[in-house]
Amino acid sequence: MAAIPESARSLLTSGRLAHLVTINADGSPQVSIVWVGVEGDEIVLAHLGDGQKVRNIERDSRVALSVEGTEMQPPGLQQYLVVYGTARITEGGGPELLQELAHVYLGPEVKFPPGDDPPAGRVVRIGIDRIAGVGPWASS
Amino acid sequence: MAAIPESARSLLTSGRLAHLVTINADGSPQVSIVWVGVEGDEIVLAHLGDGQKVRNIERDSRVALSVEGTEMQPPGLQQYLVVYGTARITEGGGPELLQELAHVYLGPEVKFPPGDDPPAGRVVRIGIDRIAGVGPWASS
Repeated sequence: MAAIPESARSLLTSGRLAHLVTINADGSPQVSIVWVGVEGDEIVLAHLGDGQKVRNIERDSRVALSVEGTEMQPPGLQQYLVVYGTARITEGGGPELLQELAHVYLGPEVKFPPGDDPPAGRVVRIGIDRIAGVGPWASS
Repeated sequence: MAAIPESARSLLTSGRLAHLVTINADGSPQVSIVWVGVEGDEIVLAHLGDGQKVRNIERDSRVALSVEGTEMQPPGLQQYLVVYGTARITEGGGPELLQELAHVYLGPEVKFPPGDDPPAGRVVRIGIDRIAGVGPWASS
């Protein structure tokens, strides 16, 4: 597992949406757009239910995650980050992580999830195998 | 191949970036961020070189493509579109499509590709098998 370069860490914690790819049982791709954060050298995201992406990761831990950057570079290309990684799932902690991420993505006063008594959920933790895309992180 | 709902067509031609997923030979996901347009009921994008995504599509035509929407919906989720489709590649026409898309993505006066004598390239054409995500297109 590689360390997260500072430029990538900065983008990953800036409240930009992440496009998460997992692999279905038949080998086809599955995509969800998710909120992400960083803990140590892992990218973290939360899931309250038993969604397709969780089932996919349990079977095949290879994932990809892409985030649009905020800057352009010649000849008119927007920077973006692609992380290829290996995901693992830990039980519980879903609502707590979602609340933390909601402060980044929605605002400092937002309560999320909105209801009471959410399920304990799961946290998906992604270790980085390789970084690609267009931007300062791609040269590392 | 399904028709593209009007709400999805509108988003796909609005100059938002598309995250394109193809499948590598070892079954892992590959992601590029690309400019897209719509021709008939196919999503189109251009490639000038002989990139990984082209080689992947030649071997496995199953792709996914995700685009962030511009609107939010309760409880604070940004709309997004995911298209699961089948891609085919046609030779040539790359610079012409890139020039057309540059007018949408970069501005009406931009010449793209910037150099003279670009290679003929390829056009990737994606027929829609299924639409998902969060937004009006996801209920169709």
